[in-house]
Amino acid sequence: MLPTITTFGWVPEFARGFVRDMRPRWAFEEVGQPYAVKLISDSKGPEHRRLQPFGQVPTYQDDEVAIFESGAIVLRIAERAGRLIPVDGAARMRALQWVAAALNSVEPFVMALAVNDIFEADREWSQARHVKVVDDLKTRLGDLEAALGDKEWLDGTEFSVGDLMMISVVGALRRSAALADFPRLAAYVSRGESRPAHVKAMADHMATFDAPTTRT
Amino acid sequence: MLPTITTFGWVPEFARGFVRDMRPRWAFEEVGQPYAVKLISDSKGPEHRRLQPFGQVPTYQDDEVAIFESGAIVLRIAERAGRLIPVDGAARMRALQWVAAALNSVEPFVMALAVNDIFEADREWSQARHVKVVDDLKTRLGDLEAALGDKEWLDGTEFSVGDLMMISVVGALRRSAALADFPRLAAYVSRGESRPAHVKAMADHMATFDAPTTRT
Repeated sequence: MLPTITTFGWVPEFARGFVRDMRPRWAFEEVGQPYAVKLISDSKGPEHRRLQPFGQVPTYQDDEVAIFESGAIVLRIAERAGRLIPVDGAARMRALQWVAAALNSVEPFVMALAVNDIFEADREWSQARHVKVVDDLKTRLGDLEAALGDKEWLDGTEFSVGDLMMISVVGALRRSAALADFPRLAAYVSRGESRPAHVKAMADHMATFDAPTTRT
Repeated sequence: MLPTITTFGWVPEFARGFVRDMRPRWAFEEVGQPYAVKLISDSKGPEHRRLQPFGQVPTYQDDEVAIFESGAIVLRIAERAGRLIPVDGAARMRALQWVAAALNSVEPFVMALAVNDIFEADREWSQARHVKVVDDLKTRLGDLEAALGDKEWLDGTEFSVGDLMMISVVGALRRSAALADFPRLAAYVSRGESRPAHVKAMADHMATFDAPTTRT
């Protein structure tokens, strides 16, 4: 079987380009692995929850492995292909470190901004809390920019699964003003998003929502 | 050299038992690997930031690898020992999936409660927002409890690095009322925290703060 991911056949306009199936799509393109996509309309029902207990997307399956969590899926795609992840033991662990940093040290702050400004926009605390949420996020972005320094990618000249995850996480700010204060970090995100594999993945992701049959 | 972790020599009373050096300590004890601890007092200075760009703990170093991020450190300890992580490819990926779920699908909700109720307790929004933060957290805990089902550990009968991370994350609620609604999940956390390796790691973690010389 082709490795197969599950994702949404339809999402609201504001979410297009931001759904996490972009991460495995990008990884598949980077390693040159053809893949299939199964579109779903209900992620919260019992059928999908057997694959993804939190009722989210994406999920992943190949001949050997069935998993969820975009961070783990991207690692599977990388390891299965023997690409995007260094062979050298120390460099490999640094790539895993940046995957973990994207998931745990950066994304919670990016998500906090989306939750506050979009999903909790009508709550009484949203406006008052906005400045604090932005401040916390900018602290992390500043730290990350300092760690990146003048390097092309987080570990130097080799693009890894750590960059793929970090750029996916920070790239979610592409419509936000928060990234503007961090020009080197913004340029790093742009470098990642300009890679042919990302361009192809994004085009395929967006094309999902053009198909008239996908909202079931 | 002994594998060496860096952590705080002193933290406020409320944080004792909750600092993330508990995760590598627990993993070291599970695999029977002796280790060294370097205590620091300032995580935000330039010296420590060379090891940890976000100015946090723990960091990890052995003869080959120097990394940060507790999720990656615990993977390194497991892989280096050839324990806590299944050899079978599918089970190995499921363990990585649960590590990613702990870091990205559960911990942000646990941290949100700590941030709202402790670090933002004096902010104007803290009280009003509390109910929403608890509701979001309980949704995740309910999903996690359903995924656990009647199993001993997340993947069945074999304790893995995925359990170690998930129990470390959910165990941070041990002083909160949020866990009381999820008795099977609470029992799972207790099973993990009752393991001799966790008991030893916690005793060593807490002993750090007894030493009169550690607040420098």
